[in-house]
Amino acid sequence: MRVAGLISGTSVDGIDVAVLDIDDHSMSLVCSGSTPYPPEVRGAILAMSNANTHTPAISRLNFLLGELFAEALREVCDRTRTPLQSIDLIGSHGQTIFHEGEPAEFCGRRIASTMQIGEGAVIAQRIGVPAISDFRVADMAAGGKGAPLVPFLDYRLFRSETVNRVALNIGGIANITVIPSGGKAEDVVAFDTGPGNMIMDQLSPPYDSGGEKARAGVVNHELLDRLLEDPYYSTPPPKTAGREQYGPDFLARTGIDITTAAELTARTIAMAIHDYQAEEVIVSGGGVHNRFLMERIGALLPGIRVATSAEYGMDIDAKEAVLFAVLAYESWFARPCNVPSATGAKRAVVLGKLSR
Amino acid sequence: MRVAGLISGTSVDGIDVAVLDIDDHSMSLVCSGSTPYPPEVRGAILAMSNANTHTPAISRLNFLLGELFAEALREVCDRTRTPLQSIDLIGSHGQTIFHEGEPAEFCGRRIASTMQIGEGAVIAQRIGVPAISDFRVADMAAGGKGAPLVPFLDYRLFRSETVNRVALNIGGIANITVIPSGGKAEDVVAFDTGPGNMIMDQLSPPYDSGGEKARAGVVNHELLDRLLEDPYYSTPPPKTAGREQYGPDFLARTGIDITTAAELTARTIAMAIHDYQAEEVIVSGGGVHNRFLMERIGALLPGIRVATSAEYGMDIDAKEAVLFAVLAYESWFARPCNVPSATGAKRAVVLGKLSR
Repeated sequence: MRVAGLISGTSVDGIDVAVLDIDDHSMSLVCSGSTPYPPEVRGAILAMSNANTHTPAISRLNFLLGELFAEALREVCDRTRTPLQSIDLIGSHGQTIFHEGEPAEFCGRRIASTMQIGEGAVIAQRIGVPAISDFRVADMAAGGKGAPLVPFLDYRLFRSETVNRVALNIGGIANITVIPSGGKAEDVVAFDTGPGNMIMDQLSPPYDSGGEKARAGVVNHELLDRLLEDPYYSTPPPKTAGREQYGPDFLARTGIDITTAAELTARTIAMAIHDYQAEEVIVSGGGVHNRFLMERIGALLPGIRVATSAEYGMDIDAKEAVLFAVLAYESWFARPCNVPSATGAKRAVVLGKLSR
Repeated sequence: MRVAGLISGTSVDGIDVAVLDIDDHSMSLVCSGSTPYPPEVRGAILAMSNANTHTPAISRLNFLLGELFAEALREVCDRTRTPLQSIDLIGSHGQTIFHEGEPAEFCGRRIASTMQIGEGAVIAQRIGVPAISDFRVADMAAGGKGAPLVPFLDYRLFRSETVNRVALNIGGIANITVIPSGGKAEDVVAFDTGPGNMIMDQLSPPYDSGGEKARAGVVNHELLDRLLEDPYYSTPPPKTAGREQYGPDFLARTGIDITTAAELTARTIAMAIHDYQAEEVIVSGGGVHNRFLMERIGALLPGIRVATSAEYGMDIDAKEAVLFAVLAYESWFARPCNVPSATGAKRAVVLGKLSR
C-alpha cells in the first residue's frame, strides 16, 4: 500500500509530507518534503493556539459533548428498555457551533466551513460500538453547503408516484424538501426557509408552549414587512440558514416580539412552499407542537393538505435523529448519501467519519 | 442492522436519540427520546456559537488547513515526481491548536481534551483518496493522554534484541521512546521531555540556524535552576507537554534568552534519558540540525552513543510524517496502534477517523 503522511507540529512552521510504501513487515520512504505555511496562516494558527482564546473551551466542549451524547443514548435505551448491546452502529450529528455555507474571506482565500462538536471517538469508546460523526464536512468539501441533509431521508420516506409532496421540518431553523411525484432523488429540491423555532424560543425560553404567547399578541406589520425584505428569502436554492442569522444579535437589532416572530416564521415557510406545486405538506420537528404556528402555516397555504410525519409512521420529534442513524448506515457501506441538488455539492459523496 | 442516531439541533435544547432497525429496503423505529442539556453546558454552547467568539476563525482555519495539507501533498509529489495517483491512503495529523492531557474542570466535570484541525474530508475530496485524520482523540477517549503516538513507529523501527535504545524526537516539543533490549511493545515507555525547538524558535524566528546564536551567548544559571524546578520534569510518565507550556506567556514570564533556552532543552532531554539504562540514543526531528543543541545533549550523556535516525534509514525530518502514514495504514485495517504504556490509555484502540 502506498500511504501518505501529513503533519504540522508544534513549531507551526509548515506541513511535512512523507509518502511510504508499506506492508505488514517492511516500509520504504518514497518521497518526503515540506511546504511552509503562508505567514498569515501561521499567524492565525498561533493566535488560535494561545491560551487566551476560546480554543480551550471549544476543545473541552467537544469532549464533554461526546460524553453527554453517549450518556443520552444510554439513558434513552434504559428508559425504553432497548438493550444497549443490541446496537451495531451509531451516527452522531453532534452540535453545530458554526456554519457558513457561503465562502468568507479568510487569510487571503475564500473559505466556506462548518463545525460540529461532540467527539465521535468518545461516543464510540463509551458505548463500545463504532460511531460515525461529522456528516456535513464532506459535502462542503465537495462544494456543497453541508445542508440540508434531511432530503435523503425525506425522499426515502415520502416519495410518491402520484402526489407532489413537500416535507417540512421545523427545528431551530425550518427547512423543506420538495419531492415531485414520480421524481428521482436528483429532482429533489431542498433548502432552509429561514427561522424555525429559534426566534420564538429565545423570546420565551425554553419554548412558547402551544404558541399561546404568540397567539395572545399582535403582529407588528411594519417590522414584519421590513424583515421579509431580507434578500435571503428571495435567493434561489440551494441555501442554508444558521444560528448566527437569528441569534441574540437579530433580537437586539430588530426588537422583534413573539407574535411577529411566529408570523415571520409561518410566512417565510409558506412563501418557500408557494414556489412549488405542492399538494401535501408533511411536517415534523418541534414546531409541530406549536399549534398557533401550525394554524398560521395552514391558513397561509389554502388548498394544500398539511399533515404531520406521524401520519406516515415517522415520529415527529425523532425524525432528525433518525436521519443520522440512516446516514450512518449508508456511510458504513461507503455509499454516498448527500443530495447534490439540495446542498449544491458538485457530486454525491460518502458522508461522515468513522471512529471505532 | 440496529443503528442509533444522535443530534442536538440549532435550538440547543438537548440531545435527541433514535434507535432504528434498518436494511436497504425498510426501517422501523425501535425507540427514541431526548435528554436536556445541563444549563451550564447549554450556556457554554450558546457562548461558543455566538459570532463574537473565535469559533468562526477556528472553523474557517479547519477548512483552510485541509486545503493547504492537500496542496502540500500535491506539491511534494510534484517536486519528487511521485505520481499522486499512486497513493492509496492518506494519514493526516493536522495541526494541534489545543492539547490538555490532564483533565481540567469544565461545566462541572473533569475533561481532558485535544484538538487537531485541518479537515480530513477536504483532503480526501481534493486528492480523491481516503484520508484518515484525528489520530489523538480515540486514545484520549480511552483514558490516555493522546500523546506520544510515535512509540508505535519507534518500536517498529528501532527495537533490538541486544541494545537498550532511546528514540529521541526534537520537534517543537521533545519526546523520547525507551525501548529495552528484547522488550515487547508494552514494555516501551515514552513521554514528552519538555521543550524541543519551540522556545528557541520563538526567540530567533524561524529558527536559530545551527544553534549559532545560542552558542554565542551565556547561560543564565539562576533562571535555568529555577526553570528546572518545574514539577513537570520530575513527574513520572506518562505525561505530555504542549504549546501552551512554552508559548509567548512562558517567554514573557521568564524573560529567557536563547542560550539558556538551549541549555534548558538539552538538560531536560538528558535528565529524562538518564532515568533509563540507555546504550544508544537515536535522534530525529528538526532539532538534529541544531549542532549546538546536539553537542550539549552529547556532553550531558557521557558513555551513551548518540546517533541520528538517518543512520537507521529513517529520514530525520520525515519521521513524524512517516508516523502518520504508518498509523493510517494500521487504522485502515482497524488495528489498534496506540501504545497504552506510553499514553496511559486503558486499552489499545484503533486511532483515526476515516473520510472517503
